[in-house]
Amino acid sequence: MSEPVPNETQATAPAAVPATETTAPAPTTDAGGEGEGAPAGPSKNELKKRAKEAEKAKKAAERAAREEAEKKQREAKEAEDHAKQNYGKLPLHQSQERNGQNRLKFADLNEKSVGQRVIFRARLHNMRPQGAKIVFLSFRQQTLTLQGVLVVSGDKDEHQVSKQMLKYATLIPTETIVLVEGVIKSAEVKSCTIQNYEVGIQKIFTAVEVGDLPFSVDDAARPESDFQRMETEDVQFARVALPTRLDNRVMDLRTPTNQAIFRVQSAVCNLFRNYLDSQGFLEIHSPKLQGAATESGASVFKVSYFNGTAFLAQSPQLAKQMAIAGDFERVYEIGPVFRAEDSNTHRHMTEFTGLDLEMAIEEHYHEVLETLDSMLLNIFKGLKEKFSNEIEVIRKQFPCEEFLFLEKTLVLPFKEGMKMLREAGATDSEGNPIGEMDDMSTENEKFLGRLVREKYKTDYFILDKFPLAIRPFYTMPDPTDPTLSNSYDFFMRGEEILSGAQRIHDPAFLAERMKAAGIEPASMSGYLDAFKLGAPPHGGGGIGLERVVMLFLKLGNIRRASLFPRDPKRLNP
Amino acid sequence: MSEPVPNETQATAPAAVPATETTAPAPTTDAGGEGEGAPAGPSKNELKKRAKEAEKAKKAAERAAREEAEKKQREAKEAEDHAKQNYGKLPLHQSQERNGQNRLKFADLNEKSVGQRVIFRARLHNMRPQGAKIVFLSFRQQTLTLQGVLVVSGDKDEHQVSKQMLKYATLIPTETIVLVEGVIKSAEVKSCTIQNYEVGIQKIFTAVEVGDLPFSVDDAARPESDFQRMETEDVQFARVALPTRLDNRVMDLRTPTNQAIFRVQSAVCNLFRNYLDSQGFLEIHSPKLQGAATESGASVFKVSYFNGTAFLAQSPQLAKQMAIAGDFERVYEIGPVFRAEDSNTHRHMTEFTGLDLEMAIEEHYHEVLETLDSMLLNIFKGLKEKFSNEIEVIRKQFPCEEFLFLEKTLVLPFKEGMKMLREAGATDSEGNPIGEMDDMSTENEKFLGRLVREKYKTDYFILDKFPLAIRPFYTMPDPTDPTLSNSYDFFMRGEEILSGAQRIHDPAFLAERMKAAGIEPASMSGYLDAFKLGAPPHGGGGIGLERVVMLFLKLGNIRRASLFPRDPKRLNP
Repeated sequence: MSEPVPNETQATAPAAVPATETTAPAPTTDAGGEGEGAPAGPSKNELKKRAKEAEKAKKAAERAAREEAEKKQREAKEAEDHAKQNYGKLPLHQSQERNGQNRLKFADLNEKSVGQRVIFRARLHNMRPQGAKIVFLSFRQQTLTLQGVLVVSGDKDEHQVSKQMLKYATLIPTETIVLVEGVIKSAEVKSCTIQNYEVGIQKIFTAVEVGDLPFSVDDAARPESDFQRMETEDVQFARVALPTRLDNRVMDLRTPTNQAIFRVQSAVCNLFRNYLDSQGFLEIHSPKLQGAATESGASVFKVSYFNGTAFLAQSPQLAKQMAIAGDFERVYEIGPVFRAEDSNTHRHMTEFTGLDLEMAIEEHYHEVLETLDSMLLNIFKGLKEKFSNEIEVIRKQFPCEEFLFLEKTLVLPFKEGMKMLREAGATDSEGNPIGEMDDMSTENEKFLGRLVREKYKTDYFILDKFPLAIRPFYTMPDPTDPTLSNSYDFFMRGEEILSGAQRIHDPAFLAERMKAAGIEPASMSGYLDAFKLGAPPHGGGGIGLERVVMLFLKLGNIRRASLFPRDPKRLNP
Repeated sequence: MSEPVPNETQATAPAAVPATETTAPAPTTDAGGEGEGAPAGPSKNELKKRAKEAEKAKKAAERAAREEAEKKQREAKEAEDHAKQNYGKLPLHQSQERNGQNRLKFADLNEKSVGQRVIFRARLHNMRPQGAKIVFLSFRQQTLTLQGVLVVSGDKDEHQVSKQMLKYATLIPTETIVLVEGVIKSAEVKSCTIQNYEVGIQKIFTAVEVGDLPFSVDDAARPESDFQRMETEDVQFARVALPTRLDNRVMDLRTPTNQAIFRVQSAVCNLFRNYLDSQGFLEIHSPKLQGAATESGASVFKVSYFNGTAFLAQSPQLAKQMAIAGDFERVYEIGPVFRAEDSNTHRHMTEFTGLDLEMAIEEHYHEVLETLDSMLLNIFKGLKEKFSNEIEVIRKQFPCEEFLFLEKTLVLPFKEGMKMLREAGATDSEGNPIGEMDDMSTENEKFLGRLVREKYKTDYFILDKFPLAIRPFYTMPDPTDPTLSNSYDFFMRGEEILSGAQRIHDPAFLAERMKAAGIEPASMSGYLDAFKLGAPPHGGGGIGLERVVMLFLKLGNIRRASLFPRDPKRLNP
């Protein structure tokens, strides 16, 4: 059956719907029609006539009573609901029985499904009654919606649908989880994602009821184009703000956009692992509870640890490097990373998912840079090849330019990047022209991203050879220019997604660099000890999973790429 | 060249080794031999004789001087080291150059390698000098060791090995990272893991030096059988205690056993994911920082969170369930799990890696139980099929009986298990016979494991239908017997590795059960709110990665299955 456009309704409604019997005609009595007559006492004729009329009235009363009784019987019969067993509220699901029912997944619908009886669990997505006897319901399973049609049928119908059943169905709130039985039919449907099929509903049960909803999935899924229509058309749509979404994240996650975003997020992890597995990497799991604050003490969360204090790892940096010193050669880890930074921006969270790797170097740290690059290209290509449907769904709500990348990635020396910026008129925070060894501000990173896109037609590139002074103490200096380092950042759409370097593997040199950075080597003796046991030359990098997802899809806010985001002001849900 | 068994040495040493030149004979002088003579002033003859003697002495002195000069020249020539360029300490690796060297991985050695010149980076595993001119070195790359032979050669040899070079090599400490150049030869070697090949060393450089070692890799890798030999043979071996290993984990991780254990650990994660990916599960990453303490407040770590307090997630339970309420249908997560329990046992850690899954149920929670079971069978089979080498390596150090499992897993009702225990004479902690609804003690779990192994020939089984009273508040009660629940534990070798259940998805019922468990519903309003938005019936379970690895391999202590274990007394390294 097609979607409920009035003209099509009649044509598609089942022809067999019996017309409700019209009520029997009201009993007619032969009242009136008296002849003109004499006023005197009743004549014989008159008496005869009266007796006849009395008899007639009696019969009429009897007939009326009989007809009244018949009417009541008819009405009682009508009130009786022969479809009772086909709808209603199910008891609490406690695994009462197991019949091995084959429950339909909408994703499995195909030509062979037509004509088949199916049972499925789904959410009631929305509903449109069409007159008194038909209601169109839309059922949702994840990103897919299927149209259902419920039509009141006669009581001789094997799968009876009563008026009461129809009424029950129309009162089911959206988002209720229902159990539906029916027959799949070919159809042309425009208002659902499944446009070739619909289900003729024979049974519908409420499996799980819902309370008050903070917003509808449709409103939460509304594309920007809907809001643009408000400017030119006489339509009104509710915009669901990000904090409202995050407060009610469970509801928000049900939108097709979010269902797709987290499939893409999951795909990034899979592509990351698959590539590295093929390159001889080993997956590790390192502890997040640390005995000492690594890197900078200021942005580390403190944990009460029995009678002492522990710290949450800001990265698996130390553990990765120890794994290399432990001869695992090439390791990666996917795990949470904690940053106690009070940054309330579109791209900072206090907890995010780090995709980290570390590998021994044979000749040159560019071996690491190239491995990271190939891994990212594998992700970009994998997403474009295998997740184009998901990307398309997300683009509807978050339209953006195609993410551009080159077959051979642009590797730009840091100085070169600064030169491009300077020539384009970039300034530092005080409005002065930037120097080639300055730190690059977030603003200028974005500016450089635009310049690179224009000149090289790519949204993805690498900045190599950062000034030593602006990198962490464990960064290996350049072999010839002591002001430079063997370090790099990777960018997507002008934002940093990966930072990495060759690390110093010599413990004496590391201690010297610690002191130069104002860190007392004794405070990180565990770290130094690992290198005293001998670690091969090595390097690595860390990627923020949510940043990659946010920037690839241009979601505008990193929280949209996190299932349950955490920031300085948000610890729930 | 074969390993250095004395009898074979001569036969295998290159014939071309030039004998060191014997030192030139000491200069002889014609002293003595004077005739008898008159005491008067010198006669003519006497003068003549004296002149002759002076002449003789002069010549002798000249000859001595000449010989001395020749000797010095010879010595200088000897002292000159024509092999200087073939050994020594490399400068700090700062990625000075990149020549595209093809560095050998021992794992890639094959018949075609014979006769090839190779360059490789490896650890010096150990060394055995054989006389003054030969030294046998063993090089290690992860689990593989390759024999190297260094033989002093003449200076006409293209790839000269000098005495000095030999001396340098013999002084390299074990565990030093070296860069070696040489030629691969066929050989029969017993003392290395690579037994068909060895490398004739032409160059050897120290790439990374090491400090004092806490113990040797050989001692750390010693199998139990070595220690048994100490009882019958006159041998002594150092046993490296677990705390010493963990204090120096980087060193400990280099043993073949540990290299294999963490390959198995990584494989478990891969097999877990691959199976669930094939079953339509989605990987998620949920936050470890929580706004409220879930489950039991007593065993939760507190975190200073800006001006407030956060808690470390004891499991992804809440997030997994919210993902189900958010319509992801089937989700899994691999991530850290934190338990602030002051348990100092062989099987407890304060942080471990949880393999968690949650899925919507159609008809019966056994759908979940069966998914978990299939997933675990996939892991066991995958390990046996693809990691038999690693398992064999580990068995050498940790011998154990083969891990038994059935094609169709035994699912034992809890009551049945208790009955088996009771009939076998099991008692509770006070020595009384156990009741069928008691909690099962760790002791009795192990006892039951032995009973089941004996009766059913399996080390892996499921206990189903636990008493409701001993399960968490969110466990769904049995539909007919209110004292039972839809919950299960999975066991390996008599120890629990997985706990799970159907969860209560109805918010009113959940609140009721919370109250019954003494939990104020308001304190977990975020949790309840998710269900008010409607969650399908669902269930799941959580596995401890390290427990699975420990029990499959029978390592005896969970710390051996954790890269850097954490317990109440250990936060480092």
